[in-house]
Amino acid sequence: MKSSEKIDREKNIAAEKALDYIQNGMTVGLGSGSTFKIFLEKLSKKIKEGLEIQTVSTSNGTTSLAESLGIKPTNLSEINSIDITIDGADEVDHELNGIKGGGGALLYEKIIASISQKNIWMINQEKYVDRLGKFPLPLEVVPFGADHTFKKFKEMGLNPKFRMDGDKYFITDGKHLTIDLDISRKVDMKKLDEELKSIPGVIETGLFLNLCSMVIIGKENKCDIIERT
Amino acid sequence: MKSSEKIDREKNIAAEKALDYIQNGMTVGLGSGSTFKIFLEKLSKKIKEGLEIQTVSTSNGTTSLAESLGIKPTNLSEINSIDITIDGADEVDHELNGIKGGGGALLYEKIIASISQKNIWMINQEKYVDRLGKFPLPLEVVPFGADHTFKKFKEMGLNPKFRMDGDKYFITDGKHLTIDLDISRKVDMKKLDEELKSIPGVIETGLFLNLCSMVIIGKENKCDIIERT
Repeated sequence: MKSSEKIDREKNIAAEKALDYIQNGMTVGLGSGSTFKIFLEKLSKKIKEGLEIQTVSTSNGTTSLAESLGIKPTNLSEINSIDITIDGADEVDHELNGIKGGGGALLYEKIIASISQKNIWMINQEKYVDRLGKFPLPLEVVPFGADHTFKKFKEMGLNPKFRMDGDKYFITDGKHLTIDLDISRKVDMKKLDEELKSIPGVIETGLFLNLCSMVIIGKENKCDIIERT
Repeated sequence: MKSSEKIDREKNIAAEKALDYIQNGMTVGLGSGSTFKIFLEKLSKKIKEGLEIQTVSTSNGTTSLAESLGIKPTNLSEINSIDITIDGADEVDHELNGIKGGGGALLYEKIIASISQKNIWMINQEKYVDRLGKFPLPLEVVPFGADHTFKKFKEMGLNPKFRMDGDKYFITDGKHLTIDLDISRKVDMKKLDEELKSIPGVIETGLFLNLCSMVIIGKENKCDIIERT
């Protein structure tokens, strides 16, 4: 089996398992990204079969996809709380801390995660790591002064790169820019997160610390479930 | 003398003094607000008399005012560094920490302040306080999920209020919302700042800690200058 097929299979197994946690009457946060897309397609089938839930979306991309599948997300301002949010992640460590934002939706994903009772992440095997930082850390930054913010990251030795969309800057749903940082030499992620957030112009980081309640790791013919204790 | 006249006189004295710190060839950050407006009018006269400086602006309001006075601010992305930024403040304590953002420009003001070699604030007497917090603390927040962010502040006992512009939400230059908090019962401002910035959706706070280099306090017939040591 080719590597991409293997990954798809793992994602599929994780997404199938995540369905088990969705119950009638819930308000469900809809994540973003490739694994989430697989989940959303499965979820739409369950809804067609009679599952009744309310949803809120973390990105314009997810909203479009949901609507194409017959699901109409509720406006976040119209709901009181979120029972569960299902999302993917770029990397997750053994303490269930993670890096998210590879898909460019980290700000809204983090806002939704922070008001969800429970956050479940679905990942394929290789994303479950001993130590975060192989994946670049995305930050959402204010366009005003972004070159100067970028320069600060450079001085910090974080090898910053503006996220591009062809030859233009990638623009987030919130109309901000994204800068990807190399944090492979960093150890204390809490300290790093605080340090980065203290820089004026940094809106949010892709470090999701103490937010994930459970990770579902898709493997070849099964999945591992790891729950925050 | 009426109270408002007294305040205007104090602001005028502080603004006059601030001019002393602007030298030929400097790149000058232009603040925002009522005291800054007085300064900018004085500065434009100096420029007409031959002072040669480059400027960058902290708000659309200041840019408009500057242009009406014949000053054309340079785009922030086109300059390498800022020698000095002159600005007002809503409250300043004896350690030169302050609250800014009453005028709604805190995010860009803080970005400019953080890349300035020197920050000088001009204030009238009553803004120099033993303890910050009589003035409400403004925060710039992401519109997405703002009702939930607001609810968190309420739970924290901070009596949040959305900044309004008539019957609509006040929109910042960065297209975000502003929430004003009652922090009169808070003592540790550094801790509060970190706590607030850790909430997803909070872009920046109006707490300007360790940024001001010098405060010029306008008094009836003189001014006091307090410099960070």
